[in-house]
Amino acid sequence: MISIVVLGAGNIGVNLCHAINSSKNLKLVQWYNRSPIKPDYILKKVSTTNDISKLVNADLYIIAVSDKAIKTISNSIKFSNRLVVHTSGCLSMHELNKKNRPGVLYPLQTISKENLIDFVKVPMCIEAGLDLDKKKLKKVAYELLSPTFFVDCEQRKKLHLSAVFINNFSNQMFRIAHELTDKKNLNFEILKPLILETAIKVQKMTPYNAQTGPAVRGDKKTIKKHLNLLCDQPELKKIYEIITNSIQSTHDKRKL
Amino acid sequence: MISIVVLGAGNIGVNLCHAINSSKNLKLVQWYNRSPIKPDYILKKVSTTNDISKLVNADLYIIAVSDKAIKTISNSIKFSNRLVVHTSGCLSMHELNKKNRPGVLYPLQTISKENLIDFVKVPMCIEAGLDLDKKKLKKVAYELLSPTFFVDCEQRKKLHLSAVFINNFSNQMFRIAHELTDKKNLNFEILKPLILETAIKVQKMTPYNAQTGPAVRGDKKTIKKHLNLLCDQPELKKIYEIITNSIQSTHDKRKL
Repeated sequence: MISIVVLGAGNIGVNLCHAINSSKNLKLVQWYNRSPIKPDYILKKVSTTNDISKLVNADLYIIAVSDKAIKTISNSIKFSNRLVVHTSGCLSMHELNKKNRPGVLYPLQTISKENLIDFVKVPMCIEAGLDLDKKKLKKVAYELLSPTFFVDCEQRKKLHLSAVFINNFSNQMFRIAHELTDKKNLNFEILKPLILETAIKVQKMTPYNAQTGPAVRGDKKTIKKHLNLLCDQPELKKIYEIITNSIQSTHDKRKL
Repeated sequence: MISIVVLGAGNIGVNLCHAINSSKNLKLVQWYNRSPIKPDYILKKVSTTNDISKLVNADLYIIAVSDKAIKTISNSIKFSNRLVVHTSGCLSMHELNKKNRPGVLYPLQTISKENLIDFVKVPMCIEAGLDLDKKKLKKVAYELLSPTFFVDCEQRKKLHLSAVFINNFSNQMFRIAHELTDKKNLNFEILKPLILETAIKVQKMTPYNAQTGPAVRGDKKTIKKHLNLLCDQPELKKIYEIITNSIQSTHDKRKL
């Protein structure tokens, strides 16, 4: 049994606490948050505190707060020589106060507290200064049923950046499609199966091999038609051009 | 029972023929292709031809060929006053020869002949000159178990453009992420659950509401870090900037 204290009640904090609490071999012994935890998220039998000087003894402390608050929280911790990790994709583990053993447990997933996620779908990127701490973090991820990957700081930063391309930027492509179709009184339901299928396709083949459409075909006629449709939206036209160029450059086609 | 002749053995042609052939109330009476149909795709009990003058009698003729070949094929058809449709997202139904009754059956999905798709996942965008033909096309889509939408030419063109943003452009975001992580010897498996979750999320909420990340948060510090990580890849840096600006413009944030 690994005993855990979670610090933070944002998206990651809430999801972690609920997942740990449902796990057989992990014990959530305390949940810290600066302000009272919302009643919706409170777990029976788990003690909470908003006083950082009152953290109880545990095998692992997970600081799941915003990047800018990590240093302050870590400096406020009174004890020393225990395993204290953060969950940030872009901060070094050395942002954590050196008096404790640092590590990172970065869940690479889009997570919100409104819809608790099954941690089977949450790859955990693990880093720690000591081998025994790496093993402990791996065990925690294993008990949460998360796939685990040992990832160093530079790798994690690239993953965090990649996650922006995958999640935020793709989502903006969906948003642009929503805008375009909405203006023509089209139901967005028409496009939802395509969104799903696009994601399913790259589960089995590389994005390189999955690419289709006018850019990769070098179909200038269709590209021209699309640019004409965007002639009164210069911002979208620019996006269309730049990503079409990117696809053609990836696939060694002549650019626009 | 609706009898159908399919013309073409590309991605859409092959998928349509197999789906029609599996349907109870549709009958694929003939399959035309310019060159012999590959043995892998041939359907027992369905007659094939490569001679367009030998098309048999049917309720519906579906021309599922590349945009540039539609006109030629439609002009080569000998008979008149029958329902002849194409499957293109960006051509008017009036590209079809006027001696027959024109229509469109545009499957809005990423379709390949290597992996036959279940038509439940293929929304059908329908257009026809006559109401009775619209009804017939709706019945065909219904028998294929496809969701159906009546869509005029202008709407269909916007859908086709939107599909490029959703499928091709998102896929290029996945490809960029693949490149970034590959350079750091990271396993692309780490990112696959995020790709799926991103698509699943917008099945229930709008892309506008689903947006997260540094751009929508106005988190300049993280954006700067990401741009630094891309300092030796000006093409990717430009894409990062332009889509970040697009997200911030969508959500009324100050631009970069």
